[in-house]
Amino acid sequence: MHSLLSFVLNATKNKKMTDYAKAFQMLFQSPLEPIYTCRDNGKCIFELPDSHYMECDGGVKEMLQERYANSEHIRFALQELPSKPDLSFADKLSVKQNFSLFNTLHKEIAGKLIRLLMEAEDLDNFLSLCVYSRHRLNAMLFQYCYSVALLHRRDTRGIWVPPVAEIFPANFIEPSAFTKMRKALQFKGNKKPHVQIPHNYTASDREIEQRLAYFREDIGVNMHHWHWHLVYPNSGTREIINKDRRGELFYYMHQQILARYNAERFCNKLAKALPLSNLREPIEEGYYPKLLDHAHQRTYPGRSGNLCLQDVNREDTTVEIADMERWADRILAAIDQGFVRDSHGNKYILDEVTGIDILGNIIEESDLSINVQYYGKLHNMGHNSIASIHDPDHRHMEEFGVIGHNMTAMRDPVFYRWHTYINNIMLKFKKLLPPYSEQQLSFSDINLREIEVRTSSLKEPNHFETFWQNSEVDLAAGLDFTADSGLHASYTHLQHASFEYCFVVENNSEHVKCGTCRIFLCPIKDESGKLLKLEEQRLLAIELDKFTVKLYPGENQLKRLSEESSVTIAVERTFGRTTNKDALSEANPELNTRLHFCGCGWPHYMLLPKGKIRGQRFDLFVMISDYADDAVQQPGQTRDCHNCEDVPNEVFDENSTLCNDNAASFCGLRDKLYPDKRTMGYPFDRRLPADTLNGLVEQFGNMQRIDVTITFNDEVRSAVDEVDLNGEDISSLAR
Amino acid sequence: MHSLLSFVLNATKNKKMTDYAKAFQMLFQSPLEPIYTCRDNGKCIFELPDSHYMECDGGVKEMLQERYANSEHIRFALQELPSKPDLSFADKLSVKQNFSLFNTLHKEIAGKLIRLLMEAEDLDNFLSLCVYSRHRLNAMLFQYCYSVALLHRRDTRGIWVPPVAEIFPANFIEPSAFTKMRKALQFKGNKKPHVQIPHNYTASDREIEQRLAYFREDIGVNMHHWHWHLVYPNSGTREIINKDRRGELFYYMHQQILARYNAERFCNKLAKALPLSNLREPIEEGYYPKLLDHAHQRTYPGRSGNLCLQDVNREDTTVEIADMERWADRILAAIDQGFVRDSHGNKYILDEVTGIDILGNIIEESDLSINVQYYGKLHNMGHNSIASIHDPDHRHMEEFGVIGHNMTAMRDPVFYRWHTYINNIMLKFKKLLPPYSEQQLSFSDINLREIEVRTSSLKEPNHFETFWQNSEVDLAAGLDFTADSGLHASYTHLQHASFEYCFVVENNSEHVKCGTCRIFLCPIKDESGKLLKLEEQRLLAIELDKFTVKLYPGENQLKRLSEESSVTIAVERTFGRTTNKDALSEANPELNTRLHFCGCGWPHYMLLPKGKIRGQRFDLFVMISDYADDAVQQPGQTRDCHNCEDVPNEVFDENSTLCNDNAASFCGLRDKLYPDKRTMGYPFDRRLPADTLNGLVEQFGNMQRIDVTITFNDEVRSAVDEVDLNGEDISSLAR
Repeated sequence: MHSLLSFVLNATKNKKMTDYAKAFQMLFQSPLEPIYTCRDNGKCIFELPDSHYMECDGGVKEMLQERYANSEHIRFALQELPSKPDLSFADKLSVKQNFSLFNTLHKEIAGKLIRLLMEAEDLDNFLSLCVYSRHRLNAMLFQYCYSVALLHRRDTRGIWVPPVAEIFPANFIEPSAFTKMRKALQFKGNKKPHVQIPHNYTASDREIEQRLAYFREDIGVNMHHWHWHLVYPNSGTREIINKDRRGELFYYMHQQILARYNAERFCNKLAKALPLSNLREPIEEGYYPKLLDHAHQRTYPGRSGNLCLQDVNREDTTVEIADMERWADRILAAIDQGFVRDSHGNKYILDEVTGIDILGNIIEESDLSINVQYYGKLHNMGHNSIASIHDPDHRHMEEFGVIGHNMTAMRDPVFYRWHTYINNIMLKFKKLLPPYSEQQLSFSDINLREIEVRTSSLKEPNHFETFWQNSEVDLAAGLDFTADSGLHASYTHLQHASFEYCFVVENNSEHVKCGTCRIFLCPIKDESGKLLKLEEQRLLAIELDKFTVKLYPGENQLKRLSEESSVTIAVERTFGRTTNKDALSEANPELNTRLHFCGCGWPHYMLLPKGKIRGQRFDLFVMISDYADDAVQQPGQTRDCHNCEDVPNEVFDENSTLCNDNAASFCGLRDKLYPDKRTMGYPFDRRLPADTLNGLVEQFGNMQRIDVTITFNDEVRSAVDEVDLNGEDISSLAR
Repeated sequence: MHSLLSFVLNATKNKKMTDYAKAFQMLFQSPLEPIYTCRDNGKCIFELPDSHYMECDGGVKEMLQERYANSEHIRFALQELPSKPDLSFADKLSVKQNFSLFNTLHKEIAGKLIRLLMEAEDLDNFLSLCVYSRHRLNAMLFQYCYSVALLHRRDTRGIWVPPVAEIFPANFIEPSAFTKMRKALQFKGNKKPHVQIPHNYTASDREIEQRLAYFREDIGVNMHHWHWHLVYPNSGTREIINKDRRGELFYYMHQQILARYNAERFCNKLAKALPLSNLREPIEEGYYPKLLDHAHQRTYPGRSGNLCLQDVNREDTTVEIADMERWADRILAAIDQGFVRDSHGNKYILDEVTGIDILGNIIEESDLSINVQYYGKLHNMGHNSIASIHDPDHRHMEEFGVIGHNMTAMRDPVFYRWHTYINNIMLKFKKLLPPYSEQQLSFSDINLREIEVRTSSLKEPNHFETFWQNSEVDLAAGLDFTADSGLHASYTHLQHASFEYCFVVENNSEHVKCGTCRIFLCPIKDESGKLLKLEEQRLLAIELDKFTVKLYPGENQLKRLSEESSVTIAVERTFGRTTNKDALSEANPELNTRLHFCGCGWPHYMLLPKGKIRGQRFDLFVMISDYADDAVQQPGQTRDCHNCEDVPNEVFDENSTLCNDNAASFCGLRDKLYPDKRTMGYPFDRRLPADTLNGLVEQFGNMQRIDVTITFNDEVRSAVDEVDLNGEDISSLAR
């Protein structure tokens, strides 16, 4: 059976892309196992050229040759490399360390590896180089750089980058689940074993922050954060880093995460996250992630409550608290002065268009920062110093905590406190800009008359419903014991009933007009019931959707499905469900590829905040802005983007050719400019000419707001059509 | 081949003890795997009667029957139990929790399970009951109680209790070693894989306490602590707990550990351990054990430096700091008043014979404490509260730290600070007793004229030599992946060159006299070089050996080998070396049993402190006391123990019938009275009629002291005859 499929990659002159696709997939599997172990459920092996073996592999080659001499494995015979690449730049990150993009040293190493992988001449060369590097380097470093390269090389478009939770499941899932899984497989008999991934395991109800665990520790939320950093690497080649409005998106994506987090906090009767402004004060929140780093078989270190930051003096990170204070002071001084200076003394005015982008790169400390020496590494070093708080001088030889790693950082309550501090600096800049003028907000002749939300499961309009959902995940790739497992694991996450927005818009002109419909959800009251002013509301506004509409003269009735949101990606995207994926890949590999490569985006099931059992009221705000001021002329686009007549009928999506849904608001577009010319968060990113939201919409015909209510239904519903109860039984015995 | 060995235990009417021995061994294997998995390298299975299956096992029985229907496994078919035992007493300790003997609740549960196992009628019943309990209960709880029962039941004498590090290796070994081992096995080819267990991995040199890691984290040292608590359980049946001078031995064993620890500290230029007297002060020492608790796949939580104790309020432990302070006050008040009262108000004078025994049980909080309500649970609750310092109210759902578990407690520097505090309370009592009188110390007509130490590797007398040794260990039993592994692992520990004491003793009387020769090693200077007074020295004196000598009229030349020490057990005892064990068990099961059941005792390789590279001077003190005042009349012993004529010739050991070497000084004797009538630590447990050690030995002919020097040789020597270098190579590639 296998022999029918067998082929030697190198011997096939007429290679099909799918052969490579398979080989590239194999490189994601079992990232902690040696490269020469069997892959793809024991069906495939890589055949390494001599130069790939290291001195310490002595004897392995012969052993493998013997073992697989007459086997029917699919072999990927790799090309000899023209010359042995020099990987010594990565020597300072050992295979046993954890890898952090926030760490200056690690970031530089990653940048060099990405450059190396990007520069590989052709696919054969690239594949061979990947295997060579994977065999030698830190697994997490390799997988990050490998994913970045796959996503950015022109010749690997369409290659599927699997969800990171499938590659490194231990970074997402409570470790006892793996023991359960192993045992369920061992005693499955004829049954289909099923394991429930624990949730709510990091703290008890005594810890009030635990109320937000469903958000902080959600698998999809943390995968989004990782994937965002794959799409927006902070080092590597200029071409990769220097994406359109990268710094502004860094600001906006994190600002939106905070808005969402704070809305969730209000729903859970907690005040919004406090900024970590005083770096000398004890950090009240403790956090014990309990995740096991499989690379070195240790739990990510916890942080006791009320620890104080200390100067960090570790082999790979050195920073004084005073450094961070100075950097913040200089950045704030620049904001108050209205300009920054690069390392040559050139002055850049922080204007309302590019100011936030410049600041975003400076504060994050991406390779686009115009003056790292002066403005420092505020955001990254904040992550590092908090991540080392339990062992600042590395005397205990403890790895950094979860906040040091972008795959796990969002689990820790302190992530939101640190980013509130970072965000407040950006907001300080935004507050200095003049309020939006009437001209910047209005859309003449357009009157948004009515808005209504209809939820599939509810009769009453303008009501949302949330609940828990149990979804299946496929973790086989990253688990060394699940070869050909047929293991079904599922996890519980927030979900909402699908809904539809309906709008009635009058176009009082005589021409077709195009507009951008912008939908936001704004908290009305804080956790204590106090009404929020517009100036507070705008900073807490959650972008739900943004799309272009074509408005014909007279009354237009428009509809938009919740699933079409420009912020989120579907759960099938977040997590490839085994059954679907397999079905797809066999039936239509093309579709499969398209479905999977756009992994960046907020998980759709988290589109709405949880609400409350008795209902939580929000303002639903909708604005239709003038497309003439929003449209972006993409390079190479032939038609005039501002010409509304050219825009296809009805609601449309510029990018449906690449991904049939996408999260452009959070992730931009692949190889294109950010598809909205306005500053991100518009119109809520700047002060507004009103005191209340009602006051605002009364002034502008192209805006409207309604009261909506989110009611949380405290029950778990299954996303799987048939629940295998026999399987459930097996999992319980696997203690 | 297997079928020849196959037998069904129950079907064989004429059972041999060795059959049971096999079955009992199987119960130690893979303690975290379900009981119905294959054991003994896949050769054996247990056949459970119907009543053993739980509801959640649904389907497993049929699956197993199918799987093994025609297999050639050795089957242990278990008896149906007369009635299903009620194990509900253990409900509050879930299978996923860690088990602590210091925890009141856990201790009670263990006590009940031990009682149940002790009361099983016969071996069939006992075996079946063990399997039944093992299938249902917390693995650590079961293994502890099962070991206690095996050691104490009359019908299981001679059953081997394996070294605990083989059962729960994860509690002793840095977890990345297991990954290495698995990979080494996977790619061993024809080679014999060999893995070096890491040491010195918990902290860097920046942490001064790391200098003592070789002591605190030694595998044998921690196994001793566990085994001591198997021999001296703090709950269970009265018969098991109420051992001769249990409370006094609790005091003495820990006092000796402290003396040894402090001597090691001086050798490493550190001051002796400070008592943790002030429970309100921050604890300076942090500790990150890095061990992985395999039961729930989490690292034992670490403790940041400078944390403060807080009131503990966890589901299974509640204690206020003020409680502990009150208990200490009441115990100290009792010491100052000279008596304690039991719960009925009866008064017990704290005299020089039994006082320390009463206090030991009170302070430890064993079930022998005469008034737990009043004197409390000082020692146990100290362990618990320090172990919960990172999560005192369990809000983070973190398990207790290593100091909460007697298998791991000695790893943490704070263990020694806590026990110094406990020990100081006992010493306070001892200091109130009058100094030893001349009559209590002298031995008329006996003159210890000369002592000399000869070390095998050195020419110069009175010099000891220490170095690092690499010894092999067998960890197969507790690892789920090593079935039939042939895996060789080795670890590095302190060792010394073997040596011999030589004495010349004059008996100036006309009769044969018997004496007890007591050998101590006393530090001369503290870490700063300050000379210690006798009053300080006596509290730091390390017992090296104690044995009975027969002294004929005139000059007696006596010799004693270091290996014969009454404090230590051989490394083969501490850790059954695979090769030896297998060879023995096949050749001579009787000998095997004798060699292995006496697992309690200080590891012999730690007999001497490390010394210094340039040599560290100590006083070697030897005293021969009058056997007439030392001898203990064992129950059932026919001869008069005080009659020296009856004592066999030369150096002898009362107990050589049971263990050919034993650690009676630390562990007492199985089923016998403690073999020395003097209070433990004599003559250094009380004040002495001199200011200096020289002053003391000058007064008494039966004492002598010499200067000795311990020189540390900083090199690793192998204890394995042939080092498999090929194997070494394999381990390095298993990253």
